[in-house]
Amino acid sequence: MNQDYISPQPWSLVETGFDPERIQSSESLFSLGNGAMGQRANFEEDYSGESFQGSYIAGVYYPDKTRVGWWKNGYPEYFAKVLNAPNWIGIHVFANGEALDLNTCQSVKNYRRELNMKEGWHLRSFDATLPNGIAIHVEAMRFLSLDLDELGAIKYEVTALNGDVAIKMVPYLDAGITNRDSNWDDKFWNITNVVHKKNTGFIEAHTMKTNFATCTFMQAHAESAGKSIACSKSDQTATKVILEFEHEIKKGEKITLTKYGGYTTSRYHEASELVSAANTTMGRASEIGFDGLLLRQKKAWMDIWEMSDITIEGDVKAQQGIRFNIFQLNQTYLGKDSRLNIGPKGFTGEKYGGSTYWDTEAYCLPFYMATKNQTVAWSLLEYRYNHLGKAIDNAKMLGFKNGAALYPMVTMNGEECHNEWEITFEEIHRNGAIAFAIFNYYRFTGDYSYIPEMGLEVLIGIARFWQQRANWSEAKGKYVILGVTGPNEYENNINNNWYTNYLAAWCIQYALEQIEKVKEGYPSDYDRIVAHTKISSDELEGWAEVARQMFFPKSEAHGVYLQQDGFLDKELVKVDDLEKSERPINQKWSWDRILRSPYIKQADVLQGFYFFEDHFTKDELERHFDFYEPFTVHESSLSPCVHSIQAAKLGRMEQAYRFYLRTSRLDLDDYNKEVEEGLHITSMAGTWMSIVEGFGGMRVLEDKLNFFPQIPDQWNSYSFKINFRNRIVTVTVSKEGSTYHLSGNEEMSIRVNGKRLVLVPGETVRA
Amino acid sequence: MNQDYISPQPWSLVETGFDPERIQSSESLFSLGNGAMGQRANFEEDYSGESFQGSYIAGVYYPDKTRVGWWKNGYPEYFAKVLNAPNWIGIHVFANGEALDLNTCQSVKNYRRELNMKEGWHLRSFDATLPNGIAIHVEAMRFLSLDLDELGAIKYEVTALNGDVAIKMVPYLDAGITNRDSNWDDKFWNITNVVHKKNTGFIEAHTMKTNFATCTFMQAHAESAGKSIACSKSDQTATKVILEFEHEIKKGEKITLTKYGGYTTSRYHEASELVSAANTTMGRASEIGFDGLLLRQKKAWMDIWEMSDITIEGDVKAQQGIRFNIFQLNQTYLGKDSRLNIGPKGFTGEKYGGSTYWDTEAYCLPFYMATKNQTVAWSLLEYRYNHLGKAIDNAKMLGFKNGAALYPMVTMNGEECHNEWEITFEEIHRNGAIAFAIFNYYRFTGDYSYIPEMGLEVLIGIARFWQQRANWSEAKGKYVILGVTGPNEYENNINNNWYTNYLAAWCIQYALEQIEKVKEGYPSDYDRIVAHTKISSDELEGWAEVARQMFFPKSEAHGVYLQQDGFLDKELVKVDDLEKSERPINQKWSWDRILRSPYIKQADVLQGFYFFEDHFTKDELERHFDFYEPFTVHESSLSPCVHSIQAAKLGRMEQAYRFYLRTSRLDLDDYNKEVEEGLHITSMAGTWMSIVEGFGGMRVLEDKLNFFPQIPDQWNSYSFKINFRNRIVTVTVSKEGSTYHLSGNEEMSIRVNGKRLVLVPGETVRA
Repeated sequence: MNQDYISPQPWSLVETGFDPERIQSSESLFSLGNGAMGQRANFEEDYSGESFQGSYIAGVYYPDKTRVGWWKNGYPEYFAKVLNAPNWIGIHVFANGEALDLNTCQSVKNYRRELNMKEGWHLRSFDATLPNGIAIHVEAMRFLSLDLDELGAIKYEVTALNGDVAIKMVPYLDAGITNRDSNWDDKFWNITNVVHKKNTGFIEAHTMKTNFATCTFMQAHAESAGKSIACSKSDQTATKVILEFEHEIKKGEKITLTKYGGYTTSRYHEASELVSAANTTMGRASEIGFDGLLLRQKKAWMDIWEMSDITIEGDVKAQQGIRFNIFQLNQTYLGKDSRLNIGPKGFTGEKYGGSTYWDTEAYCLPFYMATKNQTVAWSLLEYRYNHLGKAIDNAKMLGFKNGAALYPMVTMNGEECHNEWEITFEEIHRNGAIAFAIFNYYRFTGDYSYIPEMGLEVLIGIARFWQQRANWSEAKGKYVILGVTGPNEYENNINNNWYTNYLAAWCIQYALEQIEKVKEGYPSDYDRIVAHTKISSDELEGWAEVARQMFFPKSEAHGVYLQQDGFLDKELVKVDDLEKSERPINQKWSWDRILRSPYIKQADVLQGFYFFEDHFTKDELERHFDFYEPFTVHESSLSPCVHSIQAAKLGRMEQAYRFYLRTSRLDLDDYNKEVEEGLHITSMAGTWMSIVEGFGGMRVLEDKLNFFPQIPDQWNSYSFKINFRNRIVTVTVSKEGSTYHLSGNEEMSIRVNGKRLVLVPGETVRA
Repeated sequence: MNQDYISPQPWSLVETGFDPERIQSSESLFSLGNGAMGQRANFEEDYSGESFQGSYIAGVYYPDKTRVGWWKNGYPEYFAKVLNAPNWIGIHVFANGEALDLNTCQSVKNYRRELNMKEGWHLRSFDATLPNGIAIHVEAMRFLSLDLDELGAIKYEVTALNGDVAIKMVPYLDAGITNRDSNWDDKFWNITNVVHKKNTGFIEAHTMKTNFATCTFMQAHAESAGKSIACSKSDQTATKVILEFEHEIKKGEKITLTKYGGYTTSRYHEASELVSAANTTMGRASEIGFDGLLLRQKKAWMDIWEMSDITIEGDVKAQQGIRFNIFQLNQTYLGKDSRLNIGPKGFTGEKYGGSTYWDTEAYCLPFYMATKNQTVAWSLLEYRYNHLGKAIDNAKMLGFKNGAALYPMVTMNGEECHNEWEITFEEIHRNGAIAFAIFNYYRFTGDYSYIPEMGLEVLIGIARFWQQRANWSEAKGKYVILGVTGPNEYENNINNNWYTNYLAAWCIQYALEQIEKVKEGYPSDYDRIVAHTKISSDELEGWAEVARQMFFPKSEAHGVYLQQDGFLDKELVKVDDLEKSERPINQKWSWDRILRSPYIKQADVLQGFYFFEDHFTKDELERHFDFYEPFTVHESSLSPCVHSIQAAKLGRMEQAYRFYLRTSRLDLDDYNKEVEEGLHITSMAGTWMSIVEGFGGMRVLEDKLNFFPQIPDQWNSYSFKINFRNRIVTVTVSKEGSTYHLSGNEEMSIRVNGKRLVLVPGETVRA
């Protein structure tokens, strides 16, 4: 464990004691988001120490020009960058004219912050003695409203501790912000309008190139002892608006500033209406008031938790871990807008540019399917359907023909925006995850409608890609797929990555089956799709031939499929036999050394066994797990969850539990020593899978919900809910066994450890 | 053929007719260099059309910060960049106040330029009618002195053609220059001192970061009708010095400006003495005078040609091609300074940063060994010895131990400065070429002294690297070398590249042999080296084991060694079956498509057969040539020469001749459509090899010079000289046979087609 300053609490993150070393980590961990915007846990008041400022608006990005040492044909023109947006949270605080800055105070005592996950707010409090000797107590609460998702609210209270003091509070907007990730000193924002008016302020700015128009806004009120304090001054510069509230308080008295702020953008309003939309939102906020908004916030989070909470008895760290993961997923994506997706760091940092990766389909979809209304998962699928044209263009640029589609590795709007050839051009398995998600959606929801409406065209584009990407090897008498990067990115440009080949063959097979099914069941959709895609029986026969004759590397001696051709030529030293000082290898080793080593960044063959577990026996799984796990370094956040699920399936609960802690507390305990850069959002869905699919053994088999429940020794019990086809099943597992509770009106049968169990609404049934 | 505007002449390049489309190509083709500096054939007078300005100073570079999308551990901090240096050639020319600019003239007639390779000068002449109707005739001659190698000289003459005219000539220095290759808008030069004084000017500037101090200087004289014209004005700005000469000439009269200029640098002088060194040089130039300097230039080139010329009768294009290649090699590198080396583009452009590649050892060394005094080749070898420490540091950074050395792929001063992982970290065969050059030097010169003095330590560092870089494959029961890029850079991160593995095993073997030899013959050197390198018999046994048990991929079915593991899995479509529109593939295809194709950028297995031809039978060569040639696209300039030599060896003279034309006229005929970027200097040595080793069949076998002469149908005869161990042999091959002539005093025996032939000085012997 690398850090442990977050005290274990079931519903909260609590940090006590002021430590400048922890500021940037806490700024990530205590981040707030509401699906539409995000805010790192930066201080409202001035802070001159090391800090990583971050305010993010969903879907607002900048296309940073690709610059590489040596250009390769096919590189995309840009890499999308999530932008630090103008600051709406700032409040300069002065006591007798001296600015409050925790970095310069004589002392900071009773420092505490809490991220209340149950109710969705952040509270920070401390006693500070300023350089001028003035001692004050501060309490600052803030939240980003789930309800009015363009709005954030702050209540900032200052109490005089050691004498009478003149307090000046200066809430402000500041568009003079920068990105930490800004290699080329480009200017990202163009400020077009700065306004102050009574106790409100507005800064309109649009992003360069992408031209997203935004209005950052604020409104502030101050009061003391029940009396309102008038705004004594307002002012502006080219990049900033300030409002001033001054008041003298006596020792023991307090002054309270309430600030509403946030963003309206051209993504949801006419660009000319942003100020008026902001006024409308602030008007509603004032009407409801801070306490009213907070009540609604609690209610909104209660609704989320009602469906998605997982309780764990007897292991508060595990409990805190899973809630933190579920909380952050819900802060990041709520499925309201199918143009949005789930960035690997959500709204908590700049890394990965806020873009969409295959993480969404491979890891996040199951969580959203089981804990939300079905429309949320549909939105995620629709996102890729809407990008099909661009995926076809992308494949064309790389030399593919006839409507073959290659989805981008990294994208904001469907265009590829990553620029390492070994990833951009070669990590093509992402295409398969998108097809798998279609399969998975239907398997779980039973809703076939996506396939004739949208999905089949996606499947056809993907199948065409795989057929063209494979080539016949005279030497092997099989189709091979050369020059790829698998999920294990510690191998580049390899041949016959088993996972990729297997997925490719499956994609073709699945597409062929769905073509038949749509042809029979949805003839008008079929006709439309044939007219559009021009598939012919000759073409389909060509696909089928590739799938039938696909090559899969294996070792008879070890009885395993090989991760790729030549894997056994490596020096097979196990991870446990590496010096501790050599790890993590991605920080210690040069790239060539990593590449020729056997070390696996994240599940690769085992990812395939996870997707297609019913294609393999438990014996086969065990052999592959025992072969690959010892070489796996889990230096991707997406790795431990898959291993946890597999270990659980093999009944190795101690190992499964260790992987569970690693995935669920990856950020809380900062396993990868990088939490200050932001949180690992997409892998948090893997944590959810570790419990539900790993320990709970949830599977959909033959259209039925199945559970194979187990429980780690460290836990007394755990409980989760599944929304299965609009029926809510609550599963509780303890050492004594498992119980199942169904809400609603209709009976439903499930299977537990293969045995049928009929659930009657309102009754708790023991398996 | 892509262009053919250079008229075929045995000793010159001549272009006639003014065509703005050809300006940049001609700027490359007509470049001048003298081993210490280089100058693209830019116009002296103003030119507002498209142009690529380039003045280069040998060894003066800038370390451009490495910026890549995604950093990998081990990437070097910088990429060296050859810098466009302050312009010393410029002369603004005005006729009745109107500037001469060929891009704006009413007409340009009788335009002609000549690069006289025999004498080393460039002459340009034309008749221009300016927008104001004034017609003038211009003749501009220039050369870079081989004799005073900090100096260039220009004679610029203007004759009035259609009336009396006031001519103003303004020679200038201009440090307000930029690099074309300047991604990050960095400033490369810091100007510290600008001086004008009488008819001289000086600009002192140092390079940023590397801090090379330079002084760009000029001195000008003008005269008309035998009378000197005084400098009427001199002036300066922050980046420029000008001198003005004004004179009225009558129709038919002419004015002549002589300008001397060039660079003094802190590489050869105290930084504080650069102006005075420049004054000394200009003083000498004035003393000798333009005509005197030109005489010396002719003499110096005569000396070079005396030894290095190759004559071809009956094929003027081939004749022009080989002379152009020899001329450019001599313009680039003369072996005077062992800190210098041979950049792939010499002094003719910015690409490849003017840095050193393995081209030097693999391609250039044989030319310099056979056409120069032995000290030149020694200088090239010493260059690498001087960089051994940095090669060891480089290997250490990549995880190697115990004094293993990995020479950089690209370097200016011994530090790696390339930043693509697949090249920087993986194109490690370069290490082998450096060892091979040591072997080759001794084989050719018979001078063993380099090995005990310097070479053995280089060989030990290299052998250590190979031993550590190989690993034992349990599956193959052999040592393998994983994750490399071979000479064929259209494959990346491949396993068991045959060329690399073979070279690695050979390097170890050769190092072991030399250790024994030095131990016996040079005991004090041996003791010093053992003390320094701490080699032990255990360690050597470890090396030997790797060499003995090295794996070589092969195909029994095809009877060939395979370029790498898995080569036969590719779709083996021959180059001839590709659509013309798909080529060159490096301009038409995305990188992944190139990588999974079978296409070979440059000789790879065949490069190994070239280095180690005596290890293989002619049958084996034929089989490999027939297998690999059909997949070779020759998109590297270094490829056709090797294929030409191999084809000649197989007696396929028609094919050998085609490859010869391609290598010798690569730039003249612009095969790769990129000549405007600069010339392919290092491959020009390959052209020389194509004649001498290919057609002439020169080999050193058992310490004797051997020839296996053949002649292309297209030629009547050809002739070249070889400096073999300080004896000069002139070889002349015609359709009737071959003759040999020896200079000097002693007899010498050679072999022709395996038969002994005794050469008596002064006599021409027929074989």
